[in-house]
Amino acid sequence: MKEELMRKVQLSDKEMPKQWYNIQADLKDLPAYLNPQTLKPVTADELAPIFPPEIIKQEMSQERFIDIPEEVQDIYRTYRPTNLHRALGLERALGTPAKIFYKYEGGNATGSHKLNSAVPQAYYNKIAGIKRLTTETGAGQWGSALSMACNHFGLECNVYMVKVSYNQKPFRRTFMQTFGSNVIASPSNLTEFGRNYLAKHPDSNGNLGIAISEAVEEAVSRSDTNYALGSVLNHVSMHQTIIGLEAQKQFEKIDMYPDVVIACVGGGSNFSGFAFPFVKDKLQGKAKTRIIAAESSACPSLTQGVYAYDYGDVGHMCPITKMYTLGSEFMPSGVHAGGLRYHGMNPIVSKLYHDKVIEAVAYSQNDTLTAGRLFAQAEGIIPAPESTHAIKCAIDEALKCKESGEAKTIAFNLSGNGYFDMYAYDALMKGELGDSSAENIDKNKIVLPKIEGLNK
Amino acid sequence: MKEELMRKVQLSDKEMPKQWYNIQADLKDLPAYLNPQTLKPVTADELAPIFPPEIIKQEMSQERFIDIPEEVQDIYRTYRPTNLHRALGLERALGTPAKIFYKYEGGNATGSHKLNSAVPQAYYNKIAGIKRLTTETGAGQWGSALSMACNHFGLECNVYMVKVSYNQKPFRRTFMQTFGSNVIASPSNLTEFGRNYLAKHPDSNGNLGIAISEAVEEAVSRSDTNYALGSVLNHVSMHQTIIGLEAQKQFEKIDMYPDVVIACVGGGSNFSGFAFPFVKDKLQGKAKTRIIAAESSACPSLTQGVYAYDYGDVGHMCPITKMYTLGSEFMPSGVHAGGLRYHGMNPIVSKLYHDKVIEAVAYSQNDTLTAGRLFAQAEGIIPAPESTHAIKCAIDEALKCKESGEAKTIAFNLSGNGYFDMYAYDALMKGELGDSSAENIDKNKIVLPKIEGLNK
Repeated sequence: MKEELMRKVQLSDKEMPKQWYNIQADLKDLPAYLNPQTLKPVTADELAPIFPPEIIKQEMSQERFIDIPEEVQDIYRTYRPTNLHRALGLERALGTPAKIFYKYEGGNATGSHKLNSAVPQAYYNKIAGIKRLTTETGAGQWGSALSMACNHFGLECNVYMVKVSYNQKPFRRTFMQTFGSNVIASPSNLTEFGRNYLAKHPDSNGNLGIAISEAVEEAVSRSDTNYALGSVLNHVSMHQTIIGLEAQKQFEKIDMYPDVVIACVGGGSNFSGFAFPFVKDKLQGKAKTRIIAAESSACPSLTQGVYAYDYGDVGHMCPITKMYTLGSEFMPSGVHAGGLRYHGMNPIVSKLYHDKVIEAVAYSQNDTLTAGRLFAQAEGIIPAPESTHAIKCAIDEALKCKESGEAKTIAFNLSGNGYFDMYAYDALMKGELGDSSAENIDKNKIVLPKIEGLNK
Repeated sequence: MKEELMRKVQLSDKEMPKQWYNIQADLKDLPAYLNPQTLKPVTADELAPIFPPEIIKQEMSQERFIDIPEEVQDIYRTYRPTNLHRALGLERALGTPAKIFYKYEGGNATGSHKLNSAVPQAYYNKIAGIKRLTTETGAGQWGSALSMACNHFGLECNVYMVKVSYNQKPFRRTFMQTFGSNVIASPSNLTEFGRNYLAKHPDSNGNLGIAISEAVEEAVSRSDTNYALGSVLNHVSMHQTIIGLEAQKQFEKIDMYPDVVIACVGGGSNFSGFAFPFVKDKLQGKAKTRIIAAESSACPSLTQGVYAYDYGDVGHMCPITKMYTLGSEFMPSGVHAGGLRYHGMNPIVSKLYHDKVIEAVAYSQNDTLTAGRLFAQAEGIIPAPESTHAIKCAIDEALKCKESGEAKTIAFNLSGNGYFDMYAYDALMKGELGDSSAENIDKNKIVLPKIEGLNK
């Protein structure tokens, strides 16, 4: 009998990591968040109106490993550890000598990695006595994840959903409502910011920046209500490291270590979660792994942006951070990879890119969804449009191996499934998918905060 | 530290069963399939125009265990073994002393158990030199599964999709097209049967019986083309037993055995797959498990039908079989559980019900989707409308335990996820979900074949 082909590496419940990895312990000279009014480093007190104490502590912590609470582990175990798949089908389809592996984070009900941070965020708010969370959502993955987490811990959840998605993605909206959330099309009449905005732009389809401003305003104005963010911040990245930590254990089990590590990148939480544990090994000189962030050419903050202090939101309510940015006024085209449409980038990911620890590459949605369809046919999983950027990058690296004859080990994170994105595949097959890449971006024309002492 | 709560029982790739269980070896006096023209038992030769040799052999085999080909195992391992989950969240929500377990078959890309039979069917056709398969699909799960399997083995695939689903479920259609299938709304103008039917019923929404007739007609008329059925027949049930065989290994691992085994039932493949290995133990006197089939009250073939010889399809092209049936002219209402809208029932399931080895119960879609939403909130998986029938039954059994104080072990099969069925949950939450139960069915008015010697 033929030897069985290894298709996946499992971990048992007991093997699931019990701590997150906090990369802040291994990095020096991280730029501080600045208060947009005072321009001084943001203090814990200033964050208290919208975040619970434990989240603020994590956001600023220098501890290398932080315990995952039992209550969070219990929910993690309903869908974790996730399998590390060997992409044998894709390897055969490409005819590459490379060995391709991927973590699959789309197997939980919310369909993406976002649940890894939604669960602890809801938990820490619950134990702080908070009754209600507000958040924003674009494509809907984060809103779905937070809805499920809030439902589990008995918190109310108000999701400000970008109006264009609210209308275009009724299934996502229904999903959040199934878990008891209140879903509001943004801009709305529920907030002062929303009312003012609607007075000026009554036909606005909304965007993430507006939705963030509405969600933050509501959280600030009510003492029983906090705000939850699904990406960009340190604590979110840290919660996501469970992905990469599991992957490392899985590679250890089969006595391998990846030569190339790839993840798609928008705000940065998915990339951080998969890559940071590998970055740690690289920083400590234990590995020479190439680590690649794959972004959308519609919103190419790393590959075409500038490294500068910028606002995190359109309304300029959130802290100023040093990051790769296209400017807070940048309006990306309406690509299907809604999760990659953010003008800025996680400050730590930005610094790692600036320091050349990691690489970055940008792809158009035609190329990535074509790669996604090939992957679906070869591996039997329909990937989310965001995740197809990592797939495209992995395919390109595998084809380079075919050229050179090298049998490199390539690992990427399949951050989500595409069940709610069949419109994108339909458009691809009908040839109706626009390229949607940003026009050549003139770095000198990127609009940045005009504040003395910054961005010299 | 608290002891960790057991959330799931895994199996490794190596522990995956390597044989299917063929229940025909353990049953006597199974009624034969009859040729609808000659009324004599169907021969292998008569099945050859639509099925490959290996499938025909399996359909009639008396061997108890049949090897799963390596090529099929290889694809199985991309998504199997599936986990056996402990429904701790649901138990807590109900406050029951019962221990509830479920196999989750919705984790693969096609979203349901159907892939377990689609893969071997495509494989056996491939090695028989067939170039093209036709099939029917209702809700779309079977069509999705066969599309994926055909794509893998390089076969063309024509899917006749019941028109009401074709229009209600565009994402399912796109899904099949992503894997290269040709999807046709049935009744169609592509077949003689379809044209005749449309002439009489121009506004028909279609049903499974009609779509089967169209798919069979096309397969019969082309020598390079075979037909594949997703339920009802013995070989399909047998392929699905991988589910129950895995579940038995998983219960063995935790030294438990279920007191109650539950699955939803339409054509019977999901129920068979999960339950038959447990039926085997019961027939052999090794267990006294209660085994319950949960059907839709919109199409209650077991609970309100008659046990008689009947046609399998509307066009009366398929063999006549003795089964529980509502008559091949029965038109169920358009419930969201499209996979349960079949007038008849797998003949072996029918016989087991007739012999009182198994029980049956029928539920309305209001009750089942309400149960499905409760399950989603408690367990973090959105179930397919079909699967909510098994959930409703499991909840009812668990509530009986709460009443009696018994800590029974209840196991059910979660046959699929509901990502493509958010319309159903939306209608539920808006209070727009009709009950859709069949009116009281008069058994004397069920239309059966009027053939001397049958149905005395």
